[in-house]
Amino acid sequence: MISIAVVGYGYWGPNLVRNIAEVPGARLAAVCDLNVERLKPVSLRYPDVAITANFDELLRDHSIDAVAIATPVSSHFRLAMAALKAGKHVFVEKPIASSAEEAERLVEEAARRGLVLAVDHTFVHTGAVKKMRELVDSGLGEMYYYDSVRVNLGLFQHDVSVIWDLAVHDLSIMDYVLQTRPVAVSATGVSHVPGEPENIAYLTLHFPCNLIAHIHVNWLAPVKVRRTLIGGSRKMIVYDDLEPSEKIKVYDKGITLKDGGADKGSEVYKALVGYRTGDMWAPHLDVTEALNTELREFVECIEHTQTPTADGQAGLRVVRILEAATMSLAQRGRPIDLEPARQVA
Amino acid sequence: MISIAVVGYGYWGPNLVRNIAEVPGARLAAVCDLNVERLKPVSLRYPDVAITANFDELLRDHSIDAVAIATPVSSHFRLAMAALKAGKHVFVEKPIASSAEEAERLVEEAARRGLVLAVDHTFVHTGAVKKMRELVDSGLGEMYYYDSVRVNLGLFQHDVSVIWDLAVHDLSIMDYVLQTRPVAVSATGVSHVPGEPENIAYLTLHFPCNLIAHIHVNWLAPVKVRRTLIGGSRKMIVYDDLEPSEKIKVYDKGITLKDGGADKGSEVYKALVGYRTGDMWAPHLDVTEALNTELREFVECIEHTQTPTADGQAGLRVVRILEAATMSLAQRGRPIDLEPARQVA
Amino acid sequence: MISIAVVGYGYWGPNLVRNIAEVPGARLAAVCDLNVERLKPVSLRYPDVAITANFDELLRDHSIDAVAIATPVSSHFRLAMAALKAGKHVFVEKPIASSAEEAERLVEEAARRGLVLAVDHTFVHTGAVKKMRELVDSGLGEMYYYDSVRVNLGLFQHDVSVIWDLAVHDLSIMDYVLQTRPVAVSATGVSHVPGEPENIAYLTLHFPCNLIAHIHVNWLAPVKVRRTLIGGSRKMIVYDDLEPSEKIKVYDKGITLKDGGADKGSEVYKALVGYRTGDMWAPHLDVTEALNTELREFVECIEHTQTPTADGQAGLRVVRILEAATMSLAQRGRPIDLEPARQVA
Amino acid sequence: MISIAVVGYGYWGPNLVRNIAEVPGARLAAVCDLNVERLKPVSLRYPDVAITANFDELLRDHSIDAVAIATPVSSHFRLAMAALKAGKHVFVEKPIASSAEEAERLVEEAARRGLVLAVDHTFVHTGAVKKMRELVDSGLGEMYYYDSVRVNLGLFQHDVSVIWDLAVHDLSIMDYVLQTRPVAVSATGVSHVPGEPENIAYLTLHFPCNLIAHIHVNWLAPVKVRRTLIGGSRKMIVYDDLEPSEKIKVYDKGITLKDGGADKGSEVYKALVGYRTGDMWAPHLDVTEALNTELREFVECIEHTQTPTADGQAGLRVVRILEAATMSLAQRGRPIDLEPARQVA
Repeated sequence: MISIAVVGYGYWGPNLVRNIAEVPGARLAAVCDLNVERLKPVSLRYPDVAITANFDELLRDHSIDAVAIATPVSSHFRLAMAALKAGKHVFVEKPIASSAEEAERLVEEAARRGLVLAVDHTFVHTGAVKKMRELVDSGLGEMYYYDSVRVNLGLFQHDVSVIWDLAVHDLSIMDYVLQTRPVAVSATGVSHVPGEPENIAYLTLHFPCNLIAHIHVNWLAPVKVRRTLIGGSRKMIVYDDLEPSEKIKVYDKGITLKDGGADKGSEVYKALVGYRTGDMWAPHLDVTEALNTELREFVECIEHTQTPTADGQAGLRVVRILEAATMSLAQRGRPIDLEPARQVA
Repeated sequence: MISIAVVGYGYWGPNLVRNIAEVPGARLAAVCDLNVERLKPVSLRYPDVAITANFDELLRDHSIDAVAIATPVSSHFRLAMAALKAGKHVFVEKPIASSAEEAERLVEEAARRGLVLAVDHTFVHTGAVKKMRELVDSGLGEMYYYDSVRVNLGLFQHDVSVIWDLAVHDLSIMDYVLQTRPVAVSATGVSHVPGEPENIAYLTLHFPCNLIAHIHVNWLAPVKVRRTLIGGSRKMIVYDDLEPSEKIKVYDKGITLKDGGADKGSEVYKALVGYRTGDMWAPHLDVTEALNTELREFVECIEHTQTPTADGQAGLRVVRILEAATMSLAQRGRPIDLEPARQVA
Repeated sequence: MISIAVVGYGYWGPNLVRNIAEVPGARLAAVCDLNVERLKPVSLRYPDVAITANFDELLRDHSIDAVAIATPVSSHFRLAMAALKAGKHVFVEKPIASSAEEAERLVEEAARRGLVLAVDHTFVHTGAVKKMRELVDSGLGEMYYYDSVRVNLGLFQHDVSVIWDLAVHDLSIMDYVLQTRPVAVSATGVSHVPGEPENIAYLTLHFPCNLIAHIHVNWLAPVKVRRTLIGGSRKMIVYDDLEPSEKIKVYDKGITLKDGGADKGSEVYKALVGYRTGDMWAPHLDVTEALNTELREFVECIEHTQTPTADGQAGLRVVRILEAATMSLAQRGRPIDLEPARQVA
Repeated sequence: MISIAVVGYGYWGPNLVRNIAEVPGARLAAVCDLNVERLKPVSLRYPDVAITANFDELLRDHSIDAVAIATPVSSHFRLAMAALKAGKHVFVEKPIASSAEEAERLVEEAARRGLVLAVDHTFVHTGAVKKMRELVDSGLGEMYYYDSVRVNLGLFQHDVSVIWDLAVHDLSIMDYVLQTRPVAVSATGVSHVPGEPENIAYLTLHFPCNLIAHIHVNWLAPVKVRRTLIGGSRKMIVYDDLEPSEKIKVYDKGITLKDGGADKGSEVYKALVGYRTGDMWAPHLDVTEALNTELREFVECIEHTQTPTADGQAGLRVVRILEAATMSLAQRGRPIDLEPARQVA
């Protein structure tokens, strides 16, 4: 039985609490929040669970094996590092930290101590995203592009730009689905509120091959859109997360290229690109709550000393891109190289 | 009565022929195509209209006042320049020419001779785009962003990239609707067919104010999308050109900013951005065929020595951006300055 | 302060409990369910609220002013009648009873004792339905038709047909929005599960004027649809309850009729029907939870001896139609007259 | 080579002319219209085709093998009968005639003379409808229901109700797809224009088994809908004719019934209906123009003495339902028996 304490009981914390309480092999040991008033419903619902405003107390409690952190991003590093140093396994909200340097230090610390470090890239545990990974692995052919739009009205953040708030989802999904690392990023965007971070942004990710990825995020859109297009040489995917059921549609569409000795520009040459249109198919998706699947995996990783799907390295890769995109954004899209993912652990 | 000859009877030429034949004040004088076989249906339908494979013949014909050019882009400059030098008014397909330098020379020549030079930016004559211009002029408030997606499967072009083929539409619409000139462009994209131009591209346009524009064009998408979001401080627009009727939706949505002396990051400060959600409204749109409206205007401009909505200068502004975007594309999004639109005429 | 007891803690009871606890002027006094195990969460959440399996106990408790009944339909009459006889005001789930005769007796009993009898026609308290009523009252012109589709996969009921389960929603909305009483009903449908009630049905309601209403309900549809079309001589409405925001769209569309002395069938005569197409408009809707609004109204009606929007008479009118439709259904659509709504109280 | 004359050059005639001119094995011999002015474009486009206002002349012309009739419904019987009596094969617009009695006489006359009598049920030759027939034949299981909505604004007809104008499409599709004959019809509807035929109508068709069919047609709807749901015990179909590509969606959804000795109404019994949700699939459809396919078949049937897909019997079956529905409509939905389809030929 793995004992887990939840730190931070704001927007996401209650979901962690509810799911940890249900995961087999896990025990919800304690819930911590600076504002202890917020924790009253926890006591009512789970009378046996300790509540506290004192994080250090949790660290000193040897019966607690792991800590799940759902506090503001700026505190992730400090809390996760303290937990690792106290010998606790760590599950932390995305993004894993505020900078690549912080993320690297967490990865190193966890590796040194042989502790599980998981980042809550929730989407990679949804039925839709797992199905996309499966399709990329087996049926899409050569990867051509990944294009995602994630826009709506609100909520404006004050400490981070829309990239750190929304694009982080797409970057974590992309990292998992494509399994290829980008080499450069170009980002553009602006803020429409004086003195505040960018509320609209566009990211292009360049890859070593002729794959391209693009993300459009916006807090100031009149309609809500959550739509990703993935193009492969054999099949293409539309992933619409707002669809109540058919979230993933697979199109047997594409181009066919024929060899030909014809001169470029000639009529014969033009016939070399053909268009292929076949069936569309919407596979049935697993509808298990992603957070539940994810926490089960976290518990199993602790029990069997395994690496979670979204480990510290995944968290680090995403933060590296966020950081580079932020630099590019300040320079109107100048491309920023992503240093080769040097082994930090 | 203005006599007009049509040059080029391929994909678009028949539309020019049909509309010129119907425009009051215009006379369809001749139709020219190198492949004179193609012109047979013209003879059947319009027995009084001359058909010819000889462009120079048209130029020598003093009864012809104007020439409408619907040939491949690479020939626009040569044909339009010859027509202007022969004293003919010119109506030319978009893009006006293959380079900014060519476009400038056409603008200068037309100005020097006092001839009308119109570019066929068809969309700016649709009911939907005219309504957007009207809304931008009167109700949207300060302009925040312009975001357009124009993707589908095919038709791959062999001589120009997807930017010159598809983004040209968005740039011409944006030029007309926003009436503000961008100062820099950052573009990214790739080709998925060896040796061929880019088939997917993303353009960001930077403006002197905190307006941003973005265009996504793609010949290799599994679904057809023609959707533009326009954000203003007071209202926002969704323009979906594939909607059979309500193409323009105006949302009374946005954010409200309150002054406040609160410290940044404090709870009070966070309350400074509010969200406003009101009615949505889809105005009835004029459904007159755009090309008809456009050709009527061309005839009137000749008759009354006026400037068309999409004149040579508009054509030049669009080509300047296409040219700069092509440069940026080759450098992974490095921003390219758009030189201040120096007066060329 | 009005003390209310909730009876029945199955699917809907928890919503009643939660809302009553929040309504100003109301006190959640007790919750009753035959299966007292189900009531544990109530005790945890509301330690001061009595829980019981004994309905009679509630009736004997003089501190309880009103009873909200959320039990299976077959028990509505018995429980509501007992509550009224014990001098309690009653709020009962829809349909108010299993037969018109039962409904009449409840209406009579409540009237005789001067008690409030409300039926939970929840939809009539939603922002969308209230807006439709407003539009019918002020802008749609003469009413032409009301057409509703309410289909999805499941949940098959075993004691009542799809009419009593789903059409009851449409009938209650229609009763409130149209304010006109139908004079006959024709219904068709079948069961696809041997020995079970009809799972697909179609109802047509005839009115004294040339208004027509139609309802399509189905438990065995591959897609979920909740869509109503309302046609008036001046405007038309599309109400799509699955839309996340613009649930109500008002179309300035219709026909125009011109007087003309022309012979029927002549070309001139044919020109007498014209088509009018104007703006579409989606009004902003109140998003307060309907059940909250409804329970506030119930409390106010008790306090000020008023009649609720959906009173016993409304419940009775709906049940009369359900009963007649069930008869018609058994006779392949033979129209059944709805006796003039005789005054039962 | 089969020589065909087209009679009637109004709305649909030009489509017949264009397709007959392209069908291999067919020769467009003549086009006839009372208003010979209308035929000018035919002469321009097809200089070798005779044009005439005299129908009898065509009948006397022994070089003409067949006649395609696209005149108003009221004249179908007279023209088709005259053509058959003159020994011509006949292709006639839907509905085949104004009454079942007329239709029967045409069927008998064609049979007696061994001539091909085809009715233009265009939809049954579309890729979408052919795919539905294929699915019904092979994969849907037992048929449960067929539900169609065909509504839009206009065009109001003056001589026939909306049933004869719009429901005729659904009845012809259903006749082809289901291959089962209804035994009774119940129809309701009203007219909103004084003195004019019904502009909104609802038809229920009863079958010997527990299959049910329903059609909703309306000339006065704010939105255009062309949607059919087909429910089978194994799969279900949504056919949306307005979708540009995926018109047919096949859902692997439904209910599962388990045998069980449990008492009706008990909890165990309730578990007997289960819900099954699997993949959705949109098969690629043949996009050949239906009218072309249909006319090719007509020519082949003449050449090889075969029966067309939509023969006179199909035309008669549809008219019988239209006639019975019209009777039911006048009696508020009273069900009308469809006499067993007695062999008329």
